[in-house]
Amino acid sequence: MITKAKQKLIQSLKVKKYRKKHAAFVVEGSKSVLELLRSSLTVLKVYALPEWAEAHAVELRKQGIEVSLAKQRELQGASFLSTADQVIAIARLPEENLLESHITKGLTLVLDGVRDPGNLGTIIRTADWFGIRHIVCSEDCVDAYNPKVVRATMGSLFRSNLCYLELADLFARFKEVPVCAAVLNGHNAFEFKFPKPAFLVIGNESNGVQAATKAHLTHAVTIPRIGKAESLNAAVAAGLLCALAMK
Amino acid sequence: MITKAKQKLIQSLKVKKYRKKHAAFVVEGSKSVLELLRSSLTVLKVYALPEWAEAHAVELRKQGIEVSLAKQRELQGASFLSTADQVIAIARLPEENLLESHITKGLTLVLDGVRDPGNLGTIIRTADWFGIRHIVCSEDCVDAYNPKVVRATMGSLFRSNLCYLELADLFARFKEVPVCAAVLNGHNAFEFKFPKPAFLVIGNESNGVQAATKAHLTHAVTIPRIGKAESLNAAVAAGLLCALAMK
Repeated sequence: MITKAKQKLIQSLKVKKYRKKHAAFVVEGSKSVLELLRSSLTVLKVYALPEWAEAHAVELRKQGIEVSLAKQRELQGASFLSTADQVIAIARLPEENLLESHITKGLTLVLDGVRDPGNLGTIIRTADWFGIRHIVCSEDCVDAYNPKVVRATMGSLFRSNLCYLELADLFARFKEVPVCAAVLNGHNAFEFKFPKPAFLVIGNESNGVQAATKAHLTHAVTIPRIGKAESLNAAVAAGLLCALAMK
Repeated sequence: MITKAKQKLIQSLKVKKYRKKHAAFVVEGSKSVLELLRSSLTVLKVYALPEWAEAHAVELRKQGIEVSLAKQRELQGASFLSTADQVIAIARLPEENLLESHITKGLTLVLDGVRDPGNLGTIIRTADWFGIRHIVCSEDCVDAYNPKVVRATMGSLFRSNLCYLELADLFARFKEVPVCAAVLNGHNAFEFKFPKPAFLVIGNESNGVQAATKAHLTHAVTIPRIGKAESLNAAVAAGLLCALAMK
C-alpha cells in the first residue's frame, strides 16, 4: 500500500526543490518504469497494481526488484497524471558526472536555455536515438527530472549522462573543443562536416543561442529554409543537427 | 466590445462540430494574428486591446482590417488560454482544395493518423520551413483548426494547403505518384534519393504507418538508429524526412 504520507511525499517530488532535498524523482507508466529497471539508476521504490507486478514477475525477479502492491486509488493519490498508470517508481537522482574523457573525444550536446519540458524530453529522446548520451544543460534549462520531461524522454533519460553547468565555464574549461551551433547565415548544415570532438549547441525556443554562448562559437551552421516559417521547433532542429552530426 | 453571446460563440469554436457549423476558427496571439492578416484567408473579425490596435495601426490599415476594441476581461471570456493574449481573430475555414497539378509534379506530405495536436502543428510548421505547402491528412488525424494545432503552427497553417481524405482513395486516384514512408528496414534515409512527384507519408505517433497505407508504399526509407531510443517523435521524424526530401 501507499500510505497517505507516502502519497504526499511522492506528490512533493513534482517540485525541483523537493527532488533535490530527497535526491529522488518519480517515474510513471509501465514502459518508462521497465526502462528504469533495466538502467543503471538506483530504484528506491516501485508501487504497482497486483496485475502489473504479476505480468512482469520474471523481469522483476531478474532485476531483484521488490514491488509494493498498491490499490488504484492509492496510485491515483500519488500520481501526477489525471489518470494514474499501473505503476509508479521512485528513483535516486543520479550524480552529475561531466565525462572529460568523452568531451575531448566525442560529440556532446549542449542545451542553451531550453525551457519547455516537452522539448527537453523530446531532445533527450532524439539524442538517444542518434547515439548521443552526453548532454550538458545550461543552468536556465528546465530540470530534466521534472515529470513532464521524464515522460517525454520515454526512457531515454535513464541512458543519458546529463549535467547542469554554467556554459561559459564549460567552454572555458574545454577551450580546444570546437563549439558548433545553428544560427542565421552559417554553413549549410547539410554540407557541413561536423568536427569531432565537438559541442553541438541547441538554443532556446524563442531566442535561439544566447549571446554569452555565441561568443564561444567556432562553427556556425544553418538549417536552410526553403519556405516561409519564421523558425523551426527546437526539438526538430536538434533532431536534424544530431542526425547530421552522427550520420 | 465582445458581447457575452459573442464570447460564447467564440468558445464554441474550440469544438470541431461548431467550427464546421460556422465555417470558422479562432486564432489567438499577436504573432499568429498578424500572419493571418497577411495570408489569403478570409478574416471575419478581429478583437483586440486598444494598445494592440494602435501598435499595429499601419499594418491593419494596409490590410483593410477593422478591429473591434475589447477589454481584457472580454478577451479572457472568449479566449481558450488561461491568460488571454492581446488579440483574438476569427477566420473563415478555407475550402479544401486538392491541387492535382501539384500532386503530379511536386512533393505532397501525407499524415497518416497523427493524433497529437502539438505534433500536427509542429509538422505543419516544419513542412512550411522546408517549403512543403501541400498536406493531405487521413480522416483520423486531429483537426488542423483545433486551437492547439493552430497555436503550434505559429502562422504556417495559413500558408499551407490542407485536405482531409481517405488515404486509400488518394493513392488510388494518383496511382502513378510514388509513395514514400519511414518504416523499419527501409533504405537509409540519408542515402535515399527521394523521387518527384512523391507522397511522403508520416505515420501515427505510436503505431507508425498504418497497415492500409503500407499496402500502397512504393519506397520504404528508414532513419538509421545509432543509439537505443525505441522510436523517434513523429514531428522530429517528419522534420528529418522533409529536410532530406527537399534539400
